[in-house]
Amino acid sequence: MRAKGKFISLEGIDGCGKTTLRDQLYDYYKEKYEVLVLREPGGTEVSEKIRDMLLDVRNVGIKPRTEAFLYAASRSQLVEEMILPALQAGKIVIADRFMDSTIAYQGYGRGLDIEFLQELNHLCTGGLKPDLTLLLDIDPEEGQKRRNQDIPDRLEKEGLEFQSRVRAGYLALQRAEPDRIKLLNGGASIIELRGQALQHLAVLL
Amino acid sequence: MRAKGKFISLEGIDGCGKTTLRDQLYDYYKEKYEVLVLREPGGTEVSEKIRDMLLDVRNVGIKPRTEAFLYAASRSQLVEEMILPALQAGKIVIADRFMDSTIAYQGYGRGLDIEFLQELNHLCTGGLKPDLTLLLDIDPEEGQKRRNQDIPDRLEKEGLEFQSRVRAGYLALQRAEPDRIKLLNGGASIIELRGQALQHLAVLL
Repeated sequence: MRAKGKFISLEGIDGCGKTTLRDQLYDYYKEKYEVLVLREPGGTEVSEKIRDMLLDVRNVGIKPRTEAFLYAASRSQLVEEMILPALQAGKIVIADRFMDSTIAYQGYGRGLDIEFLQELNHLCTGGLKPDLTLLLDIDPEEGQKRRNQDIPDRLEKEGLEFQSRVRAGYLALQRAEPDRIKLLNGGASIIELRGQALQHLAVLL
Repeated sequence: MRAKGKFISLEGIDGCGKTTLRDQLYDYYKEKYEVLVLREPGGTEVSEKIRDMLLDVRNVGIKPRTEAFLYAASRSQLVEEMILPALQAGKIVIADRFMDSTIAYQGYGRGLDIEFLQELNHLCTGGLKPDLTLLLDIDPEEGQKRRNQDIPDRLEKEGLEFQSRVRAGYLALQRAEPDRIKLLNGGASIIELRGQALQHLAVLL
C-alpha cells in the first residue's frame, strides 16, 4: 500500500509551538516536494464536524471513552481520505497531531486505559504509523503563556496539572520508541527549533 | 458490575416493526418493572448529536469505517451513561438496536471487515451483551412498504439489495448465537408478534 511518500507527525502539549513549526516546515519544503499539511482532529469535511463537536464547551456530558471513539472516527476518515492517497502519490504528509496525542491526552491526561487506546489506535489507523514524529517538549506554564487565553475551550480549561500529565505521557512514548519519536526543545527559539527539526527530516528525506 | 437488571435488544432491517413492538413491550411491563427504553444511534444528548451527523444526507463523503467509529462512540456513551447504571439499579433495559446492528449493517450490508467490527463492538460495549435479543425477520420488500418514504434518509436510499444483505447478516448472527438471539416473524400481526416476544421474555424475567 505505502509508496514513496513520507509521513511526519508533530506532537506536544498545547502551546508547544507545533503549529508555527508546521508552517515553517511547509514553507521550507513546498518548492522541492509536494507537501500536504493536516491537523487533528479535523482535516476533512467529516472530521471538521467531529472536531466542532469535540471542542464544543456545551458537550459537558461527554464521557472520556466516547471522546476517544470520536477522535478515532476523525482519524480513520483522515487516514482513508487524505493520508493514504497522499502517501501513495509520493507526497510528504505533515500532521499536526496523530495517534500519539490519543495516548498522551486520553491515556496519561484523562486516565483512560492505555491498552484500550492502543487497540483503538490500531483499528483507526489500520496499522499506519508516522515515519517520523517530532515531539516538541515544553514546560506547561510556558505553554500556557503562549496560548490565546481569551476564549478557553473545554480542553484548555483542564489546566496545568492536566498538561503536566500529558507531557509526562509524551516523554514516556518517546522513551519507548526513540527511533520514531525525536525530542525537540519547544522552549527554544523558532529558528533553533526549525534547525533541530530539519536535521531529523534530512535523515528521512 | 451487572446487578439484577435485564438487558433486551430488538433487531431487524428497516421497517421490520421493532419500534411498534418496543412500545408494546414498554406498555406491558411498565406497571410491574422499571423499564428504560433506548434507541440506537441516540439515547443521550451526545449520542443524539452523533445520530444527527450520521443521518444527515449531506455527509456523503463519510467513509464506512468512519461511520462504524461514530456508531461506536454513540454506543459507548449509551452504555456508560444509561445502560450500565440502569442495570445496576435493577431496571429492564429495552434497546431499539444494539451491537448486532453494526455487524448486520456495516459488515454484511456495507462489506466492512467483520473482525474489525467485532473488535470495535467489544471496545465500545466493554464486553456487555444483551441477555436476550429479539430479531424481527421480514422480507425487505414488505419492510420497505411499511416505512415512511416521504423523506428518505441516506441509509434508506440504499435500497432493497442492501436490506437483503443486512437481513442475511442478521440470520447468520442468529444461527451463531441461538441462545441469545430469538427469531420472530416480523411479517406477523402485531398481536401475534407481541405474543411471541412475551413468551421469550417470560423465560428471562
